[in-house]
Amino acid sequence: MESSAGRKKIGLIGLGLMGRPMGMNLIKAGHSLTVWNRTASRADELVAAGAKLAKSPQEVAAASDFLLTMVSDPPALEEVLWGSNGAMQALEHGSIYVDSSTISPSLARKIAAACAERGVRFLDAPVTGGDWGAKKGELLFMIGGDADTLKEAEPILGVMGKKWFHLGPNGAGQTVKLAMNLILALQVDALAEALALVTRAGIQGEKLVEVMQSSMARSGVLDVKAPNLLKGEYVPSFPLRLMHKDLGLALDLANQLGVALPATAAARETYNYVKGAAKEDLDYSAVMRFWKS
Amino acid sequence: MESSAGRKKIGLIGLGLMGRPMGMNLIKAGHSLTVWNRTASRADELVAAGAKLAKSPQEVAAASDFLLTMVSDPPALEEVLWGSNGAMQALEHGSIYVDSSTISPSLARKIAAACAERGVRFLDAPVTGGDWGAKKGELLFMIGGDADTLKEAEPILGVMGKKWFHLGPNGAGQTVKLAMNLILALQVDALAEALALVTRAGIQGEKLVEVMQSSMARSGVLDVKAPNLLKGEYVPSFPLRLMHKDLGLALDLANQLGVALPATAAARETYNYVKGAAKEDLDYSAVMRFWKS
Amino acid sequence: MESSAGRKKIGLIGLGLMGRPMGMNLIKAGHSLTVWNRTASRADELVAAGAKLAKSPQEVAAASDFLLTMVSDPPALEEVLWGSNGAMQALEHGSIYVDSSTISPSLARKIAAACAERGVRFLDAPVTGGDWGAKKGELLFMIGGDADTLKEAEPILGVMGKKWFHLGPNGAGQTVKLAMNLILALQVDALAEALALVTRAGIQGEKLVEVMQSSMARSGVLDVKAPNLLKGEYVPSFPLRLMHKDLGLALDLANQLGVALPATAAARETYNYVKGAAKEDLDYSAVMRFWKS
Amino acid sequence: MESSAGRKKIGLIGLGLMGRPMGMNLIKAGHSLTVWNRTASRADELVAAGAKLAKSPQEVAAASDFLLTMVSDPPALEEVLWGSNGAMQALEHGSIYVDSSTISPSLARKIAAACAERGVRFLDAPVTGGDWGAKKGELLFMIGGDADTLKEAEPILGVMGKKWFHLGPNGAGQTVKLAMNLILALQVDALAEALALVTRAGIQGEKLVEVMQSSMARSGVLDVKAPNLLKGEYVPSFPLRLMHKDLGLALDLANQLGVALPATAAARETYNYVKGAAKEDLDYSAVMRFWKS
Repeated sequence: MESSAGRKKIGLIGLGLMGRPMGMNLIKAGHSLTVWNRTASRADELVAAGAKLAKSPQEVAAASDFLLTMVSDPPALEEVLWGSNGAMQALEHGSIYVDSSTISPSLARKIAAACAERGVRFLDAPVTGGDWGAKKGELLFMIGGDADTLKEAEPILGVMGKKWFHLGPNGAGQTVKLAMNLILALQVDALAEALALVTRAGIQGEKLVEVMQSSMARSGVLDVKAPNLLKGEYVPSFPLRLMHKDLGLALDLANQLGVALPATAAARETYNYVKGAAKEDLDYSAVMRFWKS
Repeated sequence: MESSAGRKKIGLIGLGLMGRPMGMNLIKAGHSLTVWNRTASRADELVAAGAKLAKSPQEVAAASDFLLTMVSDPPALEEVLWGSNGAMQALEHGSIYVDSSTISPSLARKIAAACAERGVRFLDAPVTGGDWGAKKGELLFMIGGDADTLKEAEPILGVMGKKWFHLGPNGAGQTVKLAMNLILALQVDALAEALALVTRAGIQGEKLVEVMQSSMARSGVLDVKAPNLLKGEYVPSFPLRLMHKDLGLALDLANQLGVALPATAAARETYNYVKGAAKEDLDYSAVMRFWKS
Repeated sequence: MESSAGRKKIGLIGLGLMGRPMGMNLIKAGHSLTVWNRTASRADELVAAGAKLAKSPQEVAAASDFLLTMVSDPPALEEVLWGSNGAMQALEHGSIYVDSSTISPSLARKIAAACAERGVRFLDAPVTGGDWGAKKGELLFMIGGDADTLKEAEPILGVMGKKWFHLGPNGAGQTVKLAMNLILALQVDALAEALALVTRAGIQGEKLVEVMQSSMARSGVLDVKAPNLLKGEYVPSFPLRLMHKDLGLALDLANQLGVALPATAAARETYNYVKGAAKEDLDYSAVMRFWKS
Repeated sequence: MESSAGRKKIGLIGLGLMGRPMGMNLIKAGHSLTVWNRTASRADELVAAGAKLAKSPQEVAAASDFLLTMVSDPPALEEVLWGSNGAMQALEHGSIYVDSSTISPSLARKIAAACAERGVRFLDAPVTGGDWGAKKGELLFMIGGDADTLKEAEPILGVMGKKWFHLGPNGAGQTVKLAMNLILALQVDALAEALALVTRAGIQGEKLVEVMQSSMARSGVLDVKAPNLLKGEYVPSFPLRLMHKDLGLALDLANQLGVALPATAAARETYNYVKGAAKEDLDYSAVMRFWKS
């Protein structure tokens, strides 16, 4: 998809369930990669594949003409950018910075403003597709920012994803991402409510899932999550604590804008209930535990 | 799927958006059809195609060895069965009665008991697939009742639908149907909340729908309803008043069983809000009017 | 409050937490009382005090010129009125029938119509004040029905309660009662949510209650229920299953009328959760168990 | 209540509906008062009564040995403390700083830590009682912080309020305040839902209020707000935008702690709906507009 001349010095900060496979795909595509993660051991696999491990976000930014961040939440990103040895101060004039974390649109706009002051071009580019999509290089990017910047970033996005949507100025990518996660969270919560109902009525959950899969309600996320709900096994693919956080960001945005979201608000409390009761890290499909903990 | 010897005297009560095309398919398959509807004019098309129009539910039942009912709600069905000139008293020993209305599981069990006293075999057999599925003969039946009765009914169900699921004893079909509608109602409500959020944030709803259709959230119902939400046009396919009623039945069941359904309860009030404000009959995708009436 | 000439033949059906003390006050006031209860042993105390125990609701009605019913829910009342040996058929022309159960306004209107056919005057007259108010004769009656009938009933109501409000035609008493219970249920649920929040934050619940009692939020119900919530002791005064039922009736009415009640709907599911998990009969303040079961 | 020797140099930042009468009471008690407000004209009345108007929060802090802040929300307080010419840098070692704004417990703890570094003693001391309580000097303070500091602050608190509760270390005052506002918001929302129900059923709202005021549901806040709801007049006493913000802070805290608050979450969206639709500033009792806008 790109010539060797297109190979770039890429910095990657955040090596979790998503960041690691994204980094691996960047290395496979021939890019030079410098990485950093709060827990350094998470970099082992990428370092073994050729990535350089930096000592700080600042060092990553200084070594890169394309910075990518993929961290768990807004405070983590603020620390990476503006904390001690933060990345922002080292971003080079003319470089591109793409954040694929899920954060608030307002933080995305604040970052964009800080980048603009330094002559750095910023895209908010959260993704959907899960760790599975990250591994296969089939993520979907939701982009907020300048069209020309996106054009320049596309060859690199294309290594990690199969599709991207330019949705508007900075913040628009995050806005749509929050809306998308709201839909996914409610779909899974709806299936959980439906399963709770039929099983308490004495019907096997498998039967409901079978009907659902022949119906207009069938969706990719329900196909993937239904087995978790039926088995009660919730190995994290997309962790519940992150979905819970994203529902909070969606509700924050909605409450700033004066848009009432009754079902999202109800579902958030159900995820919250499970988060509060859980000892271990769980996939968000564990919302089912509200009914059978 | 059946020999001409399999042609039966079928009675059909309830000639709404669903009942009319179901009846038409029964006629096309060569069955003798006797029909009744509270508003008699709704029978015109079927009568023109060869159906006999009875003067009462009782007369339909007396003329049939296979009775099918497809009415809008539990009170309508109770009236048809036990009201003046009701069908129940005329159902013949040995006949089969299939109800495809969406009602409470407890009413389904009450009907089953009344049928059993008369030596009538009863199936609760609500459907999903919409008026479109009814026209194409591609409904999906959710069956509660006896397996042998289902076996005998299958040739007739096969004229109207492409699939059926035997889910348990009487009431199980309705239980699963209510659970299915809960999922559909929440999917559409979730899309509406997401659209309300992004559009208030200044992003075109079409962009969210485009992303959704490339994502794991894509489902048949969202594909069909998204254009309604974007255009604000809500010609009834599945009327909001009926979806609202079904959410009420689901919550009734859940509250009898002691199963909390927070998101369903929240969504029901949103549908309720729109129902209370609407003057005309609307598709249930008009839940969007909660945000832009 | 009334002369001996005012002493009446009163029938009382329903001898639960409320009915027994109401009956006792009627006896103390010198009325002749005939009683019936599904579980006959509940009548012992009243019989010892002079009440006659009838064999059926019908027998009670036949023996009375003023019938009072106080049962737990709409099905129980329908059974008492129209079940085998039901009371309705025996109500005398010219007699007065007062129902103090909490039922739907539509059932109240149905009863009123059935009474009118027999020349019986009917009041829906649900109460608030709890078993404590019933014992002290300090109930508050919410009345739907004819003003003249109320005038005639007042001497008897005055034996059991200290106040009555004439709220409109039949059904109006029940409508206001459901609205009142909605407020009470939400007040207690709100205190439970607040206590759950502060205690999880490490603050003693007693401190919140102390502040609440010095604030504009203080109310009679919160004073009475706060100790239950703090101690986790829920001896039934007003049983949770009945408050849960009343919230259901309020939501049924609201959904018939197209009035959205988001907070009531949310609270109902919380009460539902506790009802579903509880083995024993609990006061409705046990809604607190949603957080610490 | 205190000798002239007790008169202090008090700084007051934030001169809204609450801050102005609080300042007036401080002046009446003989204290020397230096004030600042973002909109300077709001200081006129206090300046006329003898207060000095400072040019910045920093100048207020430098002129005071007791600083009081009373601003609308967390961002406003952060700006006052750490913005340009912020107060924090000028707080003197040994001085006392009391914040009566409603903010998050975590921000209260962050302020306490910043104060501790400077040798400043901090109390979080949000209030309840409304503008009416502020005028009468009858506020109720909810205190988080050190007991000795509270002892020293009491003479000044006593000028503005009649009661204070020491609830725990810094943050505890805010935690209890958020819990209290949750209860008040739900009480008023519950009354609004109840009024919406009865009026749609054809009963005058006044009748429900009359019953409520004779019942266990009666509370100070319902007495004060019921006339607003009945008349549809919502002159701000406690503005809806602030109650909405406080519900958001309560939900933020609850979601950090893993405590599900279903009714609060539902009510917050109802307030949000009204906030989004309102053009003007309204009292929070305008939540009633959800039903009759």
